[in-house]
Amino acid sequence: MSRRKKLYEGKAKILYEGPEPGTLVQYFKDDATALNGEKKATLEGKGVLNNRISEYIMVQLGHIGIPTHFIRRLNMREQLVRQVEIIPLEVVCRNVAAGSISKRLGIEEGQQLPRAIVEFYYKKDELNDPMVSEDHITSFNWATPQEIDDMMALTLRANDFLSGLFAAVNIRLVDFKLEFGRLYEGDMVRTVLADEISPDSCRLWDMETNEKMDKDRFRRDLGNVTEAYAEVARRLGVMKDMPRSVPDAPDEAAK
Amino acid sequence: MSRRKKLYEGKAKILYEGPEPGTLVQYFKDDATALNGEKKATLEGKGVLNNRISEYIMVQLGHIGIPTHFIRRLNMREQLVRQVEIIPLEVVCRNVAAGSISKRLGIEEGQQLPRAIVEFYYKKDELNDPMVSEDHITSFNWATPQEIDDMMALTLRANDFLSGLFAAVNIRLVDFKLEFGRLYEGDMVRTVLADEISPDSCRLWDMETNEKMDKDRFRRDLGNVTEAYAEVARRLGVMKDMPRSVPDAPDEAAK
Ligand SMILES: Nc1ncnc2c1ncn2[C@@H]1O[C@H](COP(=O)(O)OP(=O)(O)OP(=O)(O)O)[C@@H](O)[C@H]1O
Ligand SMILES: Nc1ncnc2c1ncn2[C@@H]1O[C@H](COP(=O)(O)OP(=O)(O)OP(=O)(O)O)[C@@H](O)[C@H]1O
Ligand SMILES: [Mg+2]
Ligand SMILES: [Mg+2]
Repeated sequence: MSRRKKLYEGKAKILYEGPEPGTLVQYFKDDATALNGEKKATLEGKGVLNNRISEYIMVQLGHIGIPTHFIRRLNMREQLVRQVEIIPLEVVCRNVAAGSISKRLGIEEGQQLPRAIVEFYYKKDELNDPMVSEDHITSFNWATPQEIDDMMALTLRANDFLSGLFAAVNIRLVDFKLEFGRLYEGDMVRTVLADEISPDSCRLWDMETNEKMDKDRFRRDLGNVTEAYAEVARRLGVMKDMPRSVPDAPDEAAK
Repeated sequence: MSRRKKLYEGKAKILYEGPEPGTLVQYFKDDATALNGEKKATLEGKGVLNNRISEYIMVQLGHIGIPTHFIRRLNMREQLVRQVEIIPLEVVCRNVAAGSISKRLGIEEGQQLPRAIVEFYYKKDELNDPMVSEDHITSFNWATPQEIDDMMALTLRANDFLSGLFAAVNIRLVDFKLEFGRLYEGDMVRTVLADEISPDSCRLWDMETNEKMDKDRFRRDLGNVTEAYAEVARRLGVMKDMPRSVPDAPDEAAK
């Protein structure tokens, strides 16, 4: 580790000053938190897996023309990204009811939604990231109507692409959370995908068994958290050159 | 084969009257044609493969809410579909330049397009399926503006999903052709995906080697046509219960 300046330490990642202006280094920790930080643990190898999975997904989304902050992976735990001004919203896209929408609207977990639903949550730990409406967002200037449209369209495109990507490896994309940022380029601003896309930020269920392969294993004390993340990485084919120190999939014979 | 009424025999498929009103049986032949019928061959096993691949893709697209004519596969070569009034257009979606767009616009084959491009061709063998504009389509009443919008939106969604599905198995979705139909339900009409989606109607390139895994192998006399289709089926995991009579992938060890 060099003497780079630490800019922000979050619950799962650390941001350092990048080598060039306008860049950041995103460091993936092994820390896991849930219930807005009440529940904590260290899951050995999780950071390495999320760094790889997020790299793979961001690169793939880039290929279909979805702009992202990702530049390149630097090492096992770090990736170089473009610094953006984070839009203070968590954009959640749901295909199947699970978690908060099941509770809030009384929809049984596992039920297919009539179509993909996009929700916005205000990023504010003190308030427990409350759900907000488009009217809240524009009234308080968290994002412009154009930015809301951009985020919606990019989220739905990402949903279609990732649903296909995961379906091919027998995983159901139940829901996922995205963060977007403003990328300033001269006097232009673009809305780009930022943060990470990993089993920490998605619900991923095995297509055949419905087994959870995501952070719900941690939230709900189901055990084998890192093993499940490793299995996601293995199915996506991002483990090819991974060192042995990272936990292996529980069953190498499974598809 | 029963004494069902044959309704239409095309170049690659036969349509029979279905068991219930409003249904059809789509039979997949082994025949291949190119250059609008000038070039002909029988490729043993192709029909079986296309029946399976098209089934798999239609079912998957149904899961993300894209309406299709597909009801269920009946046997090795037949599937039950809903009868629709075919909109006389071929809707082509391109991610990478190949085939006619390379020629027409002088873009080198293999070049990534700035974004996914949707084109419409008038289905008319005598005229060689000429490309048409939206203005042509509405002037001649081939489709309404609303139907054009529907076809565009469904095609772009299918493109994102299928790009992900194929990317996960190391295949680049270069381009593909869709046909849509009008499904009459009471006094409602819906635009639904019809016909087939298979290596006959897609350009599929191996992500690493750029090897063609589609009908261009036939069009360009590259050989191993059925073997390439079988490899697509194998990667998508639709071969699990396929009988041995169908040609196997050339290299079972490849991913
Ligand atoms: N490209 C980027 N430029 C600037 N900030 C970014 C970028 N990508 C992600 N971030 C921010 O970096 C932080 C990542 O850290 P982490 O995910 O651990 O935070 P957290 O504890 O989840 O808190 P938060 O609620 O802010 O996400 C987040 O605040 C995220 O919004
Ligand atoms: N659900 C459906 N209902 C009615 N017709 C359909 C349906 N699905 C596909 N078709 C039509 O069935 C025919 C399939 O046969 P085939 O693909 O062999 O035709 P073709 O020789 O390619 O000629 P065409 O130019 O008409 O496609 C096509 O004409 C297609 O438009
Ligand atoms: Mg975070
Ligand atoms: Mg046809």
